[in-house]
Amino acid sequence: MQKLNWGMIGGGEGSQIGPAHRLGAGLDGAFDFVAGALDHRPEAGITYGQRMGLADRAYGSWQDMLAGETARPDRVDLVTVATPNATHFEITKAFLENGFNVLCEKPMTMTVEEGEEIVKLARSTGKICAVNYGYTGYSLVRHMRAMVARGDIGKVRLVKAEFAHGHHADAADADNPRVRWRYDPAQVGVSAQFADCGIHAMHMASFVCGQEVTRLSADTVSCIDVRVLEDDAMVNFRMDGGTVGRLWTSSIALGRQHGLTLQVFGETGGLRWAQEQPNQLYHMPLNGRLQVIERGEGNLSPEADRTSRVTVGHAEGMPLAFANIYSDLAEAIRAQKEGSPMDPAANLYPRAEDGLRSMAAVYAVAASGQQDGAWLDARPPMFR
Amino acid sequence: MQKLNWGMIGGGEGSQIGPAHRLGAGLDGAFDFVAGALDHRPEAGITYGQRMGLADRAYGSWQDMLAGETARPDRVDLVTVATPNATHFEITKAFLENGFNVLCEKPMTMTVEEGEEIVKLARSTGKICAVNYGYTGYSLVRHMRAMVARGDIGKVRLVKAEFAHGHHADAADADNPRVRWRYDPAQVGVSAQFADCGIHAMHMASFVCGQEVTRLSADTVSCIDVRVLEDDAMVNFRMDGGTVGRLWTSSIALGRQHGLTLQVFGETGGLRWAQEQPNQLYHMPLNGRLQVIERGEGNLSPEADRTSRVTVGHAEGMPLAFANIYSDLAEAIRAQKEGSPMDPAANLYPRAEDGLRSMAAVYAVAASGQQDGAWLDARPPMFR
Amino acid sequence: MQKLNWGMIGGGEGSQIGPAHRLGAGLDGAFDFVAGALDHRPEAGITYGQRMGLADRAYGSWQDMLAGETARPDRVDLVTVATPNATHFEITKAFLENGFNVLCEKPMTMTVEEGEEIVKLARSTGKICAVNYGYTGYSLVRHMRAMVARGDIGKVRLVKAEFAHGHHADAADADNPRVRWRYDPAQVGVSAQFADCGIHAMHMASFVCGQEVTRLSADTVSCIDVRVLEDDAMVNFRMDGGTVGRLWTSSIALGRQHGLTLQVFGETGGLRWAQEQPNQLYHMPLNGRLQVIERGEGNLSPEADRTSRVTVGHAEGMPLAFANIYSDLAEAIRAQKEGSPMDPAANLYPRAEDGLRSMAAVYAVAASGQQDGAWLDARPPMFR
Amino acid sequence: MQKLNWGMIGGGEGSQIGPAHRLGAGLDGAFDFVAGALDHRPEAGITYGQRMGLADRAYGSWQDMLAGETARPDRVDLVTVATPNATHFEITKAFLENGFNVLCEKPMTMTVEEGEEIVKLARSTGKICAVNYGYTGYSLVRHMRAMVARGDIGKVRLVKAEFAHGHHADAADADNPRVRWRYDPAQVGVSAQFADCGIHAMHMASFVCGQEVTRLSADTVSCIDVRVLEDDAMVNFRMDGGTVGRLWTSSIALGRQHGLTLQVFGETGGLRWAQEQPNQLYHMPLNGRLQVIERGEGNLSPEADRTSRVTVGHAEGMPLAFANIYSDLAEAIRAQKEGSPMDPAANLYPRAEDGLRSMAAVYAVAASGQQDGAWLDARPPMFR
Repeated sequence: MQKLNWGMIGGGEGSQIGPAHRLGAGLDGAFDFVAGALDHRPEAGITYGQRMGLADRAYGSWQDMLAGETARPDRVDLVTVATPNATHFEITKAFLENGFNVLCEKPMTMTVEEGEEIVKLARSTGKICAVNYGYTGYSLVRHMRAMVARGDIGKVRLVKAEFAHGHHADAADADNPRVRWRYDPAQVGVSAQFADCGIHAMHMASFVCGQEVTRLSADTVSCIDVRVLEDDAMVNFRMDGGTVGRLWTSSIALGRQHGLTLQVFGETGGLRWAQEQPNQLYHMPLNGRLQVIERGEGNLSPEADRTSRVTVGHAEGMPLAFANIYSDLAEAIRAQKEGSPMDPAANLYPRAEDGLRSMAAVYAVAASGQQDGAWLDARPPMFR
Repeated sequence: MQKLNWGMIGGGEGSQIGPAHRLGAGLDGAFDFVAGALDHRPEAGITYGQRMGLADRAYGSWQDMLAGETARPDRVDLVTVATPNATHFEITKAFLENGFNVLCEKPMTMTVEEGEEIVKLARSTGKICAVNYGYTGYSLVRHMRAMVARGDIGKVRLVKAEFAHGHHADAADADNPRVRWRYDPAQVGVSAQFADCGIHAMHMASFVCGQEVTRLSADTVSCIDVRVLEDDAMVNFRMDGGTVGRLWTSSIALGRQHGLTLQVFGETGGLRWAQEQPNQLYHMPLNGRLQVIERGEGNLSPEADRTSRVTVGHAEGMPLAFANIYSDLAEAIRAQKEGSPMDPAANLYPRAEDGLRSMAAVYAVAASGQQDGAWLDARPPMFR
Repeated sequence: MQKLNWGMIGGGEGSQIGPAHRLGAGLDGAFDFVAGALDHRPEAGITYGQRMGLADRAYGSWQDMLAGETARPDRVDLVTVATPNATHFEITKAFLENGFNVLCEKPMTMTVEEGEEIVKLARSTGKICAVNYGYTGYSLVRHMRAMVARGDIGKVRLVKAEFAHGHHADAADADNPRVRWRYDPAQVGVSAQFADCGIHAMHMASFVCGQEVTRLSADTVSCIDVRVLEDDAMVNFRMDGGTVGRLWTSSIALGRQHGLTLQVFGETGGLRWAQEQPNQLYHMPLNGRLQVIERGEGNLSPEADRTSRVTVGHAEGMPLAFANIYSDLAEAIRAQKEGSPMDPAANLYPRAEDGLRSMAAVYAVAASGQQDGAWLDARPPMFR
Repeated sequence: MQKLNWGMIGGGEGSQIGPAHRLGAGLDGAFDFVAGALDHRPEAGITYGQRMGLADRAYGSWQDMLAGETARPDRVDLVTVATPNATHFEITKAFLENGFNVLCEKPMTMTVEEGEEIVKLARSTGKICAVNYGYTGYSLVRHMRAMVARGDIGKVRLVKAEFAHGHHADAADADNPRVRWRYDPAQVGVSAQFADCGIHAMHMASFVCGQEVTRLSADTVSCIDVRVLEDDAMVNFRMDGGTVGRLWTSSIALGRQHGLTLQVFGETGGLRWAQEQPNQLYHMPLNGRLQVIERGEGNLSPEADRTSRVTVGHAEGMPLAFANIYSDLAEAIRAQKEGSPMDPAANLYPRAEDGLRSMAAVYAVAASGQQDGAWLDARPPMFR
């Protein structure tokens, strides 16, 4: 297949997310990195872009890039938005409006209203608007979803999700700029740890169960006094297929490095997966014995097989999960260009609707936390 | 030391708990099993007791045993009550009133009022009234408590407890008498899974943190429709030292065999322990690396050293944890007899106050669950 | 059943092995501890024995005990020999000759010739002569044996055994009397680490496979220079059923606490077990998935069910494995007394033949280690 | 930095190794894939190469590619040889002779003599000749090496390596062409499992300890009768720094997926690492506690930091280890071009000398296995 043209906004020199996207997009050779506005400082962005080989497609601002790319016949097939959170909405909107496909870093927007606007725009333009809940790219997470969908564990009764780490446990970090901003409402909005990490776990629960969160109740706390926003939250929720959810997220859980785990309990089986050891999935059939499903086993499911790259016993990690999102998008763009249906096993990338639902859930968690755990509607108005 | 005389009520032929108590009491050779009313059917109890070597101290009822033992100069030093739950209060009360030391299986009573009565009685008689929250007997659980008490992890911010198994996940068990009674309010009262399992985790959280639960909010669900009482619950709570608590209990969590775990997160460190692998304790010092503390290492703490019996690398299991409760009681009885202080490292057996607090928590969980997770006082009236 | 009378030689105050035996023998209530010569210093032994409640059956020497017990109508049904290694032969021989049943600590003798003498004596007297390879008492080790015997993994191709710890890795312990004697030929004979630990792993391999070791080749090294005897050894061997064996033992393997593990690979499946987590057994069926067998699952095998005491998910540890050897012996003595067959599922205690074979293997390892790994016959002459 | 030109020989459509190399080479964006002779069938190779975007640098044979690239001013900076084993020598030799840098798949040659010829050629030409022992690219493997080198665990006494899987355990695979060739001397030479897998473990032991293997003794067996070559081997060895080695490799070890592990035991500490969970390294300091070193912790060592791409808690897997070899080579080529020293932390790629030593070890294992485990010199003649 001919390579697709790919561009990025943000992800400049020294950023973490920039290299991660370049690695993910480049891994399968489906995308060529050809354009970018990599820094909010025009000169820095152009210089760095040129060093990356972008030549005259190294732009000084996203506005310049929008103008420049729109004018080209070989305009980028996909643009990734990896700028500070508060700018995601504006940039994503502008590119969608001009007919570009977008992959936006999470959060897609800062408010539910903005989220609804993006969803409407994506629908009206017919363009791809993906949101980077990248952990759902793991091969065995997709296999969990496939197992649930095909009934391997029966109706799902309960899902237990965690995203709990200990990297913000040091009270002395109150003054550490690398940590402090994450708990500053002016910069991150109404929620800190849930919006940063917990939402990944909630999205994954929703993704795996094939259900949407409808109501929730949250207990949010700030274990370090100076923090206005929560560094630990417990969220109970319900989903539209009748599944009960329980989600714990924390940034003060010393001893945990990352702590993204998912357990799904159905009528005829249970599943357990952990992001830190992503190549094993534990399956307990009712009245059976715990079994270990290995990534790379043959014939797991089309969704798993498609996203498994190396032979069994050779670990795959986060960068390959990330790459699977890009692989989905390459397939989606191919189908878009050819006007043909896309491989259903690839049609799994998170999209604007997920970004919107996530934003509604974040607001609901924050509000419930302030109302002693009142049960609130977690859905965006347009989906009620 | 001279052996102590020990008797048991309940635990007759075919029971699980009877052998467990005999094993625990006998393990260190501190107690001689000399008396018992082992069955509610008088003849069966006497016959079985005689086969156990109890001779003329094999009684046909607890009333007979109370009368018989009260009359003897060599009356039992400790009587264990292992009868059906609804009878614990009556028997425990009667023996305390007659000056016996009692170890009562949990739950100590069926109501908070009864619990308060037992506490007052234990205090007024000066007799030992222990309640069998036996998991706190594990050597490394005691070490966790010691570490917290001596400040190894700083002020405790958050405790995360779980007791989640999957042994009641089969809907076909609706008619299985071995399972059904556990969800029958007539037999177990206001709560099923929390009262059966969750309370162990809550007591352990309290034990390790050295704090009492003050308020709680619960989300209780019955994943199997025919059940009136919950088979899954999430409980958020607060403790009197300012620690936040989160507790999950389930009996439908397929893939978990027992699932009693405790994580404690403090200002300067985190701890993690799991009942299924009880000989390792994971310790994360702030800004350090995860370390494995092994049961049987020398000089851990007086509490751990006293309860560690075999050399490092040789697993100790549940029966030895159980035995540690009896070992505490042997020391308490020795001190009682000699009028001397008891070894503080042994003064850790759960007592009537714990039984009472647990009953109050059970009622609060049930009530909160029915009130959409309202935050309720979890303390018994006499401790408010 | 009426309790059996049990006595012990050695295991005096401060010893590790004494309490372990008392705990093991006492656990099921099958044995009463009634007699002992607990110390080589007569007064100390009598005093300690009296404190243990042995009254006039607290003897000052094993010779006194032999005389005293021989004269009694209620003589001990079983005597445990837990004295220093060099005395095992003499004491075991004397008690067997006088018609006692014996459980001897390993090693049963110091030479192969002595071992043959004991075997002949056990056979001619018809008395029980057990040797304490106690790790074979674990419920799941017995289940491994049962699985192999009933063909669950097909013909066994290869067995991989390890017993590697790091507790003698400190060169500074050269002068530590608690460590030094273990590497002193005058005290332990021709082998240190293999005779102390490795032989347990070899016996377990033999026990599980139901085969005897025929030939072996050893690479023995002393990682700490001052040691005359080996602190690390690799032994390759062959068994009489055609199975290949590989065994590693070490005392300098820093990071391992105990390290007794067994892996068995057959034509249609593999098994893996580790002493430090003894309640799980991993089973890989050919072309299947790794499964976890839990101790306490119902209906595993008669051998496993008989030796499983507490419910699934509640760990059992080393003391209960030890107790299973005593439980076997109680059943063997019962059958002996009643002249009836013993339960085949209990007929698994290690016996004089195992003690003899082990001694032959120890000598073969030492000799092969000195001959550049020459393959030597590992069988005692009487079994060739 | 300007991108380097990279070409590949072999790795055509449907091969496993081709995509792995492209992924590894492309991951960091250092190499552009510009030339290839991807298939031994000229047309297939050209067609596939053109689809990969190689245009007129898609060659029909390695000879054509050698001629074509030699003639270009922008000739490839590195050529990867991923053809069938028997052709590695010829191709590697030809490209080195014409002044190309080469990365050759293992085994570099089929004989020791050929290996010596390549080493001499690499030395005389000054060109890079790397050999793909790719597992040494893992960040924490490099950190192990760094820890050993800087003395963190003192003098290394013993190294324990394993590479044992169960993927060739099915006797029914005797006729499976995907398995059978691996045990056919005509295709693989004197050794099967050791040459295929065990040698990776031996190279890693050597790499981590910073020592070369001098002597070895092997016990090789064929557990499946029809196999002429071994499917299981135990190798004891000695290294030139005095370290003792023990290495087990197997392809019939049912229950193990990959089973590449390394344990290193020194005077003052032990280390343990496993390829299947490559992001954790276990460190036991003498008289300390087992600690978990996480990939992605800051400031581990220059060697680890350089090869760690994503934040702690996010797994990195095999493809990134592979990419690290290419990253080393990019740095080596940069230094070569600039005539400046290379970053010592990157100067870790396996090279011709390693390929030669490995071939000598393979022959020694095969010979020792046929001579009852005789201790043989494991060094190539030119290094004796």
